Amino acid sequence: MSKLLVMQSGGPTAVINSTLAGIIKIGADAVKSGAIDGVLGALNGIDGVISSRYTDLLQSTCNGNIDMLYSLSCTPAMALGSCRRPLPSDLNDPLYDTIIKSLVEADVKYTVIIGGNDSMDTVMKLSAAAYARSAALYFNGAVKTVDNDLNCTYFSPGYGSAAKYIGISMLEIIRDAEIYNVKSLTVVEVMGREAGWLGAAAALPHAFGNTAPHLVYLPERTFSFDGFVADVKREFETHNNVIAVVCEGIKTADGKYAAEGNMSGAVDAFGHAYLSGIGKVLENFAQKTISCKARSIELNVLQRSAAHAMSETDRSCAWRVGEDAALKTLECVGGLTAVIGSINPCVIKMADISEVANYIRCVPDDYINESGNMVTNSAIDYILPLIQGEVGVKYCNGLPKHFSLTV
Amino acid sequence: MSKLLVMQSGGPTAVINSTLAGIIKIGADAVKSGAIDGVLGALNGIDGVISSRYTDLLQSTCNGNIDMLYSLSCTPAMALGSCRRPLPSDLNDPLYDTIIKSLVEADVKYTVIIGGNDSMDTVMKLSAAAYARSAALYFNGAVKTVDNDLNCTYFSPGYGSAAKYIGISMLEIIRDAEIYNVKSLTVVEVMGREAGWLGAAAALPHAFGNTAPHLVYLPERTFSFDGFVADVKREFETHNNVIAVVCEGIKTADGKYAAEGNMSGAVDAFGHAYLSGIGKVLENFAQKTISCKARSIELNVLQRSAAHAMSETDRSCAWRVGEDAALKTLECVGGLTAVIGSINPCVIKMADISEVANYIRCVPDDYINESGNMVTNSAIDYILPLIQGEVGVKYCNGLPKHFSLTV
Repeated sequence: MSKLLVMQSGGPTAVINSTLAGIIKIGADAVKSGAIDGVLGALNGIDGVISSRYTDLLQSTCNGNIDMLYSLSCTPAMALGSCRRPLPSDLNDPLYDTIIKSLVEADVKYTVIIGGNDSMDTVMKLSAAAYARSAALYFNGAVKTVDNDLNCTYFSPGYGSAAKYIGISMLEIIRDAEIYNVKSLTVVEVMGREAGWLGAAAALPHAFGNTAPHLVYLPERTFSFDGFVADVKREFETHNNVIAVVCEGIKTADGKYAAEGNMSGAVDAFGHAYLSGIGKVLENFAQKTISCKARSIELNVLQRSAAHAMSETDRSCAWRVGEDAALKTLECVGGLTAVIGSINPCVIKMADISEVANYIRCVPDDYINESGNMVTNSAIDYILPLIQGEVGVKYCNGLPKHFSLTV
Repeated sequence: MSKLLVMQSGGPTAVINSTLAGIIKIGADAVKSGAIDGVLGALNGIDGVISSRYTDLLQSTCNGNIDMLYSLSCTPAMALGSCRRPLPSDLNDPLYDTIIKSLVEADVKYTVIIGGNDSMDTVMKLSAAAYARSAALYFNGAVKTVDNDLNCTYFSPGYGSAAKYIGISMLEIIRDAEIYNVKSLTVVEVMGREAGWLGAAAALPHAFGNTAPHLVYLPERTFSFDGFVADVKREFETHNNVIAVVCEGIKTADGKYAAEGNMSGAVDAFGHAYLSGIGKVLENFAQKTISCKARSIELNVLQRSAAHAMSETDRSCAWRVGEDAALKTLECVGGLTAVIGSINPCVIKMADISEVANYIRCVPDDYINESGNMVTNSAIDYILPLIQGEVGVKYCNGLPKHFSLTV
C-alpha cells in the first residue's frame, strides 16, 4: 500500500485550495476503496519533501468531510504553504536522491503538484529523475495561476476569480471617480509581467454599460509615454474622469520596463524582476505633463487572494482540475498535467507536461485594438464566462471563515 | 406645496446612497400623503443648487419603488455626484442669495445634506443665512464618513463597511503572506489623516484567531522610524511573516508627516522624484535598515467604495439616518443633523449641527496600547458590532448591479 501526496507552489490564487480540496476528495475515496492508505500534504512545496515535513490531510479534514473540503475551497492562498525553489537541471544532482528517498520513506507513490509554469517544470524534472532511477513514482501537475498565461488550457484556475475581483473593483473605482465634476485621471495598476490577461479583465465594466476604463495598456504592446499623454488628452475631450489601466510589465521601445526608474534591480529565485510602481510613475508623469488632477491605484496582492469575491465557475473548475489530476496519478501515469479543455460544461483533460512547462501564452492579437490602448469585444466575450457565479462564502462574526489544515 | 431636496457632498463611502434611499423613501411617502409635491436631488452638491441642476428623484426611482431604493442603497459613492466647495464665512455674501433664489425657484423648502464635517459646516451656514433673510427654508444634515471621526454619533455611516472591507482584505493579505517559509515584512497602508479608526479596523483579524497584524500605527501617536525598526526586529524573533499596518497621516516628533522628506530617493524614467505614500516609504526603509524582504500594500480608494463587501449593520443604520433626517426636516425644523445614538437596536437622534461641524473625534487613549504600536481589545470590541451582517448585493452576469439615477 502507498500514499497520495499533494504540494502547492508558486504564487497564491483564490482557488488553489479548491484544487487541493478536489485532490483530497479523490484521495479520501481511494482510501475508502482500499486503493491507497493515506493522503499527505508536503508543507511549503518541494521544500517540505526535502525536509520530510508532511501533514496528514485526511486527519485535518475528518477523512475528506465534504463541508470541510468546501470550506477549504473558499480559503485563499495555500493551506499547505508554498515555495519558490527551482530544481537543478542536472538530473544526477543528489538533491533528486534526497527527494526520492523522502518520498519512499513516507510511503508516497503518487504526487500531484498544484502550480504554474515553474511548478510544471518541477513536475517534469521529478518525473524524469524518478524514471532515470527506475523508481515507480508518478508525478503530475494541476495548473493554477492568476496570470492566465499557461499553455494548453482554456483558462488557468485562479484567473477567473482574479478577473472577477478586478471587474468588481473597477466598477467601484468608476463610481468613486465619477462623483466630482472636475477633470481627473485615475491610473489603475494591475498585475501582469509578460501577459496582459489581468489588464484585459479590467475592461469588463464595458459589458455593463460603462464607458470607463477608457484606456488599457497591456505588456503585449510597446508602451510609449508620449502616446499615453496623447491618449489621455484625447479622452479628456469627451470625459471628465479618465480611467487608464496599466499592467505592471509594460515595456518601452528600448525593451526596458516602463517603471524601470523605480526598480531595485532585485530578482526572485527564478530570475524574474520584482516589479511595481508603473501606476505611480504615470500618475506623477501626467501631473507634470498634462497638469491634471491624477491619482493611482495599485490593486496589488488582493487581486490574487480575494477569495471573498471568488468566481464559482473558477472555484468549481479548479476543484475538477484537482480531482482529475489525482485520478490520473492513481492510474500510475505521470508526466502530465490536468488542464481545462472547455467550460460549460467543464471538461478537464490531461496535457503533456512539456507542452505546459516554461511556455507563456500571451493575449492574442485579435483581443487588442489597433492602437494598442484597449482590448476588443472578443477579449470581453472570452473573459465574461469565467467570472460567472458567486460563491457562498461563509461569514462568521462579520468576516469570511477561512479553513486551516492545522491539526 | 413645496419640495424636499437632497444633496451629497464630500468623499465617497459605500453607504451614502443608502442614506439617500432612506430620504427618498420618506419623501415618497410624504408626496403620497400630500405633505409635499416632489423630491429633488441637486447634482454635485451645492454646486448643483448654485447652477440650478436638479433631478427628479421620484421619477428615477418609480416613486420610491422599494426594490429600486434597495438597489440604490447597495451602490457605492454618490448617485447624485459630489462637490468640495466651502461656503463663505460672511453670511451676507451674495452667493447665499443665489442659493436661496435657486431653492425658492425650484419650490424647495426642505433640504437634507448628506456629508461629513465640511458638509455639516455647509448646513450650519445655510441655516444661518436663510434665517438672516427670514426665508422659511429648513436645512438638516445626515452624517457620513469612512473616517468615523465625527462628533456626537456612535459611529459614522460608511465606517462600518470600510472596517469590514479592511477586515476582509487583512485576512486575505495574512493568508497571502503566510505561505512562504522566509522572513518577510508586509506594510499595509490605510486611510486616516487625523484619526486612526481605519487603522484600528485592520486589527480585526485578532478576533478571528490570527496573531497578525503584529503592529498597528495610528496618527494619534507620534511615529518614530527607529521605534518602527525596533518593533519589526522584535516581531521577527517570533514570526516569519510580520504584518504592520500604518495610517497615511502618521507624523514624526517634528510634527511633519512621516512620508514627507522620507522618499525612496528613486526617480522615474524622466528623472522626476518618486512620490509615494508612507507604506512604500516604510517598505524601502525596512529593506535598507533591516535587510529583510519587504512589500507594501495601499488599500487606497477601495476601502471607501467597496460596496460589494458592505456591512448590513452599516447599510441599515445609514438608511435610518436618512429617514430621520428627512422626517425632522419635513417638521420644519432646521440646523440639526441625524446621528446614530446606539446600535442594536439602531436608535437615531438629532444633534445640534454646531456640535458636529468642524470637530474631529480621534481614537480614544484606552483603544491604543501603551507602546503606541497596537490597538487594545476595547477597540476591537467597539468595531466588531459595526461590521456584522452581509448585504445581499445583486449580481448580474458576474458583477454587482449598480443603480443609476439617470432617467
